[in-house]
Amino acid sequence: METFFNPRSVAVAGASQKENLGNHVVKNLKAGFDGDIYPINPNYDEIEGLPCFPSIDAIPGHVDLAIVLVPAKAVPTVLEACARKGTRRVIIESAGFSETGDAGRALQARCDEIARKNDIRLWGPNCMGIVDVPRQYFFTFMHPRIRTSGLLPGRISLIVQSGMMSAVFLAELARKGIGVSKACSIGNRADVDECDLLAFLEKDPDTDVVALYLESIPRGRRFAELAAASTKPIVLLKGGQSEAGAQAAMSHTSSLSGNSRLATGVLSGAGVVMADSVFQMMDMAHTLGAIPRLNPACRIAVMTLSGGAGILACDALARSGLTIATLSAETKKKLEAVFPPWMPPANPIDLFPAVSLRGRTAAFMDSLSAVLEDPGVDAVVIHFVAGLDEAMSEHLDNLKKRADQSGKTVIFWLMGLAEGKRQFRENARSAGIAVHSDGTRLAECLSAVAHFNAYRQRAEAEPDDRVPPIPEPRRLDLPGTTKMLDEFDSKRLLDEWRIPVVEEQIASTPEEAWAFAEQVGLPVVIKGLAPDKAHKTEHGLVKLGISDRPRLFETFARLQTQLGGKGRILVQQQVSYDYELIAGFLRDAQFGPCVMFGLGGILAELQPDVTFALAPLTETKAVQLVRSLRNRRLLQGFRGMAPLDEAAAARLLVQLGDIGAAHARIEQIDINPLVVKNGLPVAVDANVVLDKITGA
Amino acid sequence: METFFNPRSVAVAGASQKENLGNHVVKNLKAGFDGDIYPINPNYDEIEGLPCFPSIDAIPGHVDLAIVLVPAKAVPTVLEACARKGTRRVIIESAGFSETGDAGRALQARCDEIARKNDIRLWGPNCMGIVDVPRQYFFTFMHPRIRTSGLLPGRISLIVQSGMMSAVFLAELARKGIGVSKACSIGNRADVDECDLLAFLEKDPDTDVVALYLESIPRGRRFAELAAASTKPIVLLKGGQSEAGAQAAMSHTSSLSGNSRLATGVLSGAGVVMADSVFQMMDMAHTLGAIPRLNPACRIAVMTLSGGAGILACDALARSGLTIATLSAETKKKLEAVFPPWMPPANPIDLFPAVSLRGRTAAFMDSLSAVLEDPGVDAVVIHFVAGLDEAMSEHLDNLKKRADQSGKTVIFWLMGLAEGKRQFRENARSAGIAVHSDGTRLAECLSAVAHFNAYRQRAEAEPDDRVPPIPEPRRLDLPGTTKMLDEFDSKRLLDEWRIPVVEEQIASTPEEAWAFAEQVGLPVVIKGLAPDKAHKTEHGLVKLGISDRPRLFETFARLQTQLGGKGRILVQQQVSYDYELIAGFLRDAQFGPCVMFGLGGILAELQPDVTFALAPLTETKAVQLVRSLRNRRLLQGFRGMAPLDEAAAARLLVQLGDIGAAHARIEQIDINPLVVKNGLPVAVDANVVLDKITGA
Repeated sequence: METFFNPRSVAVAGASQKENLGNHVVKNLKAGFDGDIYPINPNYDEIEGLPCFPSIDAIPGHVDLAIVLVPAKAVPTVLEACARKGTRRVIIESAGFSETGDAGRALQARCDEIARKNDIRLWGPNCMGIVDVPRQYFFTFMHPRIRTSGLLPGRISLIVQSGMMSAVFLAELARKGIGVSKACSIGNRADVDECDLLAFLEKDPDTDVVALYLESIPRGRRFAELAAASTKPIVLLKGGQSEAGAQAAMSHTSSLSGNSRLATGVLSGAGVVMADSVFQMMDMAHTLGAIPRLNPACRIAVMTLSGGAGILACDALARSGLTIATLSAETKKKLEAVFPPWMPPANPIDLFPAVSLRGRTAAFMDSLSAVLEDPGVDAVVIHFVAGLDEAMSEHLDNLKKRADQSGKTVIFWLMGLAEGKRQFRENARSAGIAVHSDGTRLAECLSAVAHFNAYRQRAEAEPDDRVPPIPEPRRLDLPGTTKMLDEFDSKRLLDEWRIPVVEEQIASTPEEAWAFAEQVGLPVVIKGLAPDKAHKTEHGLVKLGISDRPRLFETFARLQTQLGGKGRILVQQQVSYDYELIAGFLRDAQFGPCVMFGLGGILAELQPDVTFALAPLTETKAVQLVRSLRNRRLLQGFRGMAPLDEAAAARLLVQLGDIGAAHARIEQIDINPLVVKNGLPVAVDANVVLDKITGA
Repeated sequence: METFFNPRSVAVAGASQKENLGNHVVKNLKAGFDGDIYPINPNYDEIEGLPCFPSIDAIPGHVDLAIVLVPAKAVPTVLEACARKGTRRVIIESAGFSETGDAGRALQARCDEIARKNDIRLWGPNCMGIVDVPRQYFFTFMHPRIRTSGLLPGRISLIVQSGMMSAVFLAELARKGIGVSKACSIGNRADVDECDLLAFLEKDPDTDVVALYLESIPRGRRFAELAAASTKPIVLLKGGQSEAGAQAAMSHTSSLSGNSRLATGVLSGAGVVMADSVFQMMDMAHTLGAIPRLNPACRIAVMTLSGGAGILACDALARSGLTIATLSAETKKKLEAVFPPWMPPANPIDLFPAVSLRGRTAAFMDSLSAVLEDPGVDAVVIHFVAGLDEAMSEHLDNLKKRADQSGKTVIFWLMGLAEGKRQFRENARSAGIAVHSDGTRLAECLSAVAHFNAYRQRAEAEPDDRVPPIPEPRRLDLPGTTKMLDEFDSKRLLDEWRIPVVEEQIASTPEEAWAFAEQVGLPVVIKGLAPDKAHKTEHGLVKLGISDRPRLFETFARLQTQLGGKGRILVQQQVSYDYELIAGFLRDAQFGPCVMFGLGGILAELQPDVTFALAPLTETKAVQLVRSLRNRRLLQGFRGMAPLDEAAAARLLVQLGDIGAAHARIEQIDINPLVVKNGLPVAVDANVVLDKITGA
C-alpha cells in the first residue's frame, strides 16, 4: 500500500495537452507531487512543460506508480507494459469495466489476471484515485478546481466507492471547513479494496479517523474484523439501505449492496459508527476527531442564554438516546450563588437571568466550573449566539483548558450572525473545541462519540471467554436430499446442543397424541409437518388451543387429510409466555457465518428490531448482542415481567453459532418464536435449511 | 391585530440615549418605520435626533402603538397612562413577569387586568415584539446588527414564543438566504397569542407560509381548528417533545408543554407540518413556499450524474416515506435512446454514461422531458454538482418552464464548490426552483409538502358526514362518589353506544360462572374487579385460560379471598385475535375532548404508535385517524390477515367521542386491548374515569 501513497515516480498513461481528464492528472500532479512525473502519449512531445513519452517502456527511470486513463480496451496493453517495466502499482482511473455489463466484466477480469501474474497491485478501475491533502499529492483526474477550492489539511481519511462522490466530498468538506488527510476513491475494486485501505490507514500516522462511503462490502467479514480491532474511529455511510437504494446500488459500480440490516448490525457491534447521510458522516468523523475520549455514559449538561435553545437541545439529545445529566446537590448550590433567587438551578442551565444579574463572564465561568466539577456530568453542550456578543470568543482557550483539566468535553451549539459565527469557528478551531451549527446534528455526533468510546472500553476490557463447543453432541445424520429439516428434526438438533425447546412429540395416531396431551397438560398445539414447507401457519397446518379429546381427534383427522399421506403430525405443549424473540444462524455471502437475535411477534415484522454478529461468538459478545436491541428495555424487567436471563440467552446464541461451525451443510437456522416466560427463553418453532439455495 | 403591524405612530416607553435595549428600539424604528416615533423618558430631551417626552400623556399626537421597555414594576403605571392616552395596542418587551415566579405572575395578572378594563390589547410581556422585513418595520429591542445582517424580504411569517430565539431565527434565515415576511415574538402571551396571529396571518396578503416555535399551546383546540381551516401551510417546531425538554419548558416562559404526543397527533391530523429541529423547520417552510402544489402521491424520479448520489437520494427519500416512481415503458423507451446500450434505464436515472455518449445538454434535457411526461412521476429530484460544470445554470429558466407546463415539481440536490453553489442558488432563486444542500433534508421537506397537499386535498373534498349521535342510548346512571367505573360497568356503557364488547357476565357464585362458561365456550377468563383498581393484571386479579370446572371453582374461590368481600367477579369469554389495538377518549387541558387510537400490546408500549383527534369526529375524520398510524400496514391485510373493517373502527371512534359529549362527568375512557379478529374490533377490557382527578 505504502507505494501507492508515496511513490518516487509516477507515469500517466493517457496524459494529454487538451483540457480533458488526461490533462487534469498531469496538472494535479505538477501542483504538488515532488517526485518524477512522466506523461505518456505517443502524440505529444511535452505536456504541461514536462517531456512526454510514447510508452512506459520509453521512460528512462524507474516508475513506482502508473496512473492509467486510456480507453478501457487499451488498458490490458498498458498493464503488460507496466509488467515489463517493473511497475508494481497501477491506478486504473478509466471507466468501461464491470460497471458496463458482461463485456466490461470480462475486460476487468483480464486486467486482474495480468496484474496477478505479474505481482502488480491494481487500484480501480472506474475511480478517481488518491488525494493526500497535507502533502498536496493529487493522483487523480479530478477537476483542478477542487484542488484550489480551499481544501484543508486534516486528520480524517476517506475511502469512497463512488468516483464522482469522492470529488464532491472533498469540495463539501472544504466548504464546511473540515480538514482531510487522504481521500481514496476505489471504484470497482478489482484488487485494492476498503479492507486493504482500512488496514493501511489504521497504521497511518497522519490519520485519526476513517470515513467511508460504500455500496457493498464484498469482504464484509474481514472488514468487520479489521473494524473490531481498529483503535481509530470508523464512520461508514452505506448506500443502498432502502430497497430502492439497494436496487440502484446493484446496477452501480457493479456491486451488490447485500443485506443492509445484517451489515449494520455486525458493523455497529464492531464499533463502527453508521451514518445515514453525507453531511452526517462528515460531521460525525469531524467530531470523533475532535473528541478522542469521552465517558460513554455521556451525561450532558446544557448551558444556554436562551431558554428555548436549552429545551431544543434537550429534545435533540434525548432523540439521540443521550442522557441529560442530573446535577448534584453541590452543583446546584454553586449555581444558586449565581442565579436570581426566584430561579431554581436545573439542567438545561439557562444563564440569561444570571447574566442580567451578575454580568456575563462571571455568570458563565462560575457556572461552567461548577458543572465541570460535577462527577455526574461527562460533557457540556453550550448554546451560543455569535455576532451579538463577542465576550465568549476571548475565553475559548481558557474554557478548553478547564475542560481538559476536568477530563470532560465541551462542545458548542453555535447560532447567530454569519460573520460572528465564522470568527467564532476560527477561534474554536485554534482552541481545539468542537462546534456545530445544528443542535440535532450535534446530538447525533455526540452519540457517535459515545458509541465508539463504549465499544473501545468494552473491547479493551473484554475477556476471551470463548467456551469450547458442547463436547460431544450426538451428530445428527442430516438427510441427504432434503433441503430443510422439519420442525421436529430442527428442534431435535437444537436440543442436542442444549438449546431449550418446547415439549413435543410426533404422533402417528390420535390416541398417541391424546396420551401426550394428558401428560404435558392441556391445551396443546397440533401441527402438520409437510416436507419442505416452512410456513405452516400460512398453509393452515397449525391448530392452537386443543383442549379436549373430541377436538383433538377431529383436528388430527383433518390434518391427516390435509397432509395427504406426506409428512407427519406433531403434538406440542401450548406454552404461555411474556413476549416473543427470534434467534438464528445464517451464512452471509459478505459476512460469512453470523448469529441473529431480535424481537419477535407481528409488530416486530413491521418495525424490525433485529441485530447480527459474526459467529462463533464469545459469551461476552453474545451478551452484548442481547443488549444491543433498540427495545432492550423489554428484556430488562419491563412492566413487572422478570428480566431476561441474559446468560441463558447468550449461551443459546453461542450455541447457534457452534451448530453452524459443526455442520458445514447448515445454511440457516431460524428459531421463531423463541418465547420468554419468567425470563427463560424456549424455542417454540424452528427451521433448519440445508445447503445453499441456488439460483435465488 | 392590524394596528400592531400597521400603526401610524409608535411611542417607546423606556427609550434611552445609552447603548441599551431602550436605545435599540428607537434606532430600529428610525431605520424603517415611516410613521411618527415618540421616545419616552423623563431624563432626556431627545433620543437619536427625535424629541423625547417625559410621559405618554405629554405626546401631542395620537399614539397607535406603545412599545414598553421600562422595568417590570413600572409597567402597570405605563399601561394606565396608555389607557388615558387612548392607546389600544401595547407591546411589553420587558421581562420579569410570570416567568420569574409568583410575584411576577401577580404583576402580569395586574397588567392583564388594566388592559382588559381599558380595551387594550397586550402583546408580550417578555418578548422581542414585531419585525416586518419587506416593510423594514422593527418594533423590537433586537440588536440593530440583526437588522443589517442581510435579512431578505420573503413570504414566510414566523411566530416565536422564545424571545432570544426570534432574533436567532432571523439571523440564521438571513445566513441561509431564506426570505421572511413578519416575525412575531410573543413571549408570555398575557393576551395576544399564536391563535390571534394565525388568524391574522391567514388573511395577510404578504404571508404564504407560517412557521412557529412554541413550547406550549394553551388554546390548543382553537389552534387546531384554525390550522385545520388554514389555506396556508403551517410548520410547527414544538419545544419540549422529550421528557427532559418538557421539564425544561415547564420552567421557561412559564408554560406547560403538555402531552406532546397528543399535540403532534391532533395538529398533524389538522394538516400542520411538525418539524423537529430549527433548521428543518426553516427548510420545510421555505420548501412549502417554493412548491405550492404537489400531487400528494409524490412519486419521485431521481436524475443524477453520480450513481452514488442516486443511491443516497433513494435511501433518503425512502426514509422519509416517499415513493420512488416506477417509470413507464414509454419513458424507458425514450431513455433507451439516450442511454448506452449496456445500461437499462431505471430510476434513479444515472446520466453519467449518457452524458459521455451524447453530450450534457441533450442527454439531460431529453431525459428530463421524458420523465416529466411520465404520468407516474409527480416530482423530479436532480442531483447536481456545481462549480465543475456551469452548463446547467443557464438552463434553469427553461427547466422551470417545462416543469410548470407539465404541472410537476423539479427540486435540486445541490453539492459542489462553494462559489459555484452560491451562483447556482442565485439562478435557481430567480427561476423559482427549490434547492437543497442536504439530500436527507430535501426528502424531509418534500415529505412535508406531500403531507400538506394530502391534507388540503382531503379537506377540500371532505363531506360533513357528522352522523347524529346514537338516538337514545339508555343513560347510565353514573355513580355519585366513585372515581372510576369498574370493567363491567365501563363495558355496559360502551355497549349502550353500540361499541362491540366481549361476552361477559358478573357471577356471584362459581356455579353461575361455570354455567356462563359452558354457554360461551371454553376457555374463559375470570377477573376480580376491585373498586377503583384499574390495573387488575398487576394486582394478580386476572386469570386466563380457565378450561375446566375444578380449575374454575378453585380460581373463583381464590379471587374471592383476594377481593376480601369488596368488588365483584367477572367471567369473560376468552377471545382469540389477530392483533391488539387501543382506543380511548380524554379531555385535554389544551385540546379539550379528544379521541385516541393506536396499536396495543407490549411492543407498542415501548414504541408507541398512537394518534389523536379532536372530538366529536365525523366518519371521514375517524377513517383518517385510523389510517394515520405509523404501522398502518398492520391494518391493511398484513401477512394474510383480514384487513381491518375501517368503517367499524371509525364508527367506534366516533361513538367514543359522542359518549364524551353526552356525559360531561366522563374524563377518560380507555379500551385496552381493543382486539381485532377477522378485521372486526372488539373491546376486551375498558376503563372509564369520572371527574377530574385533581392535584396531579
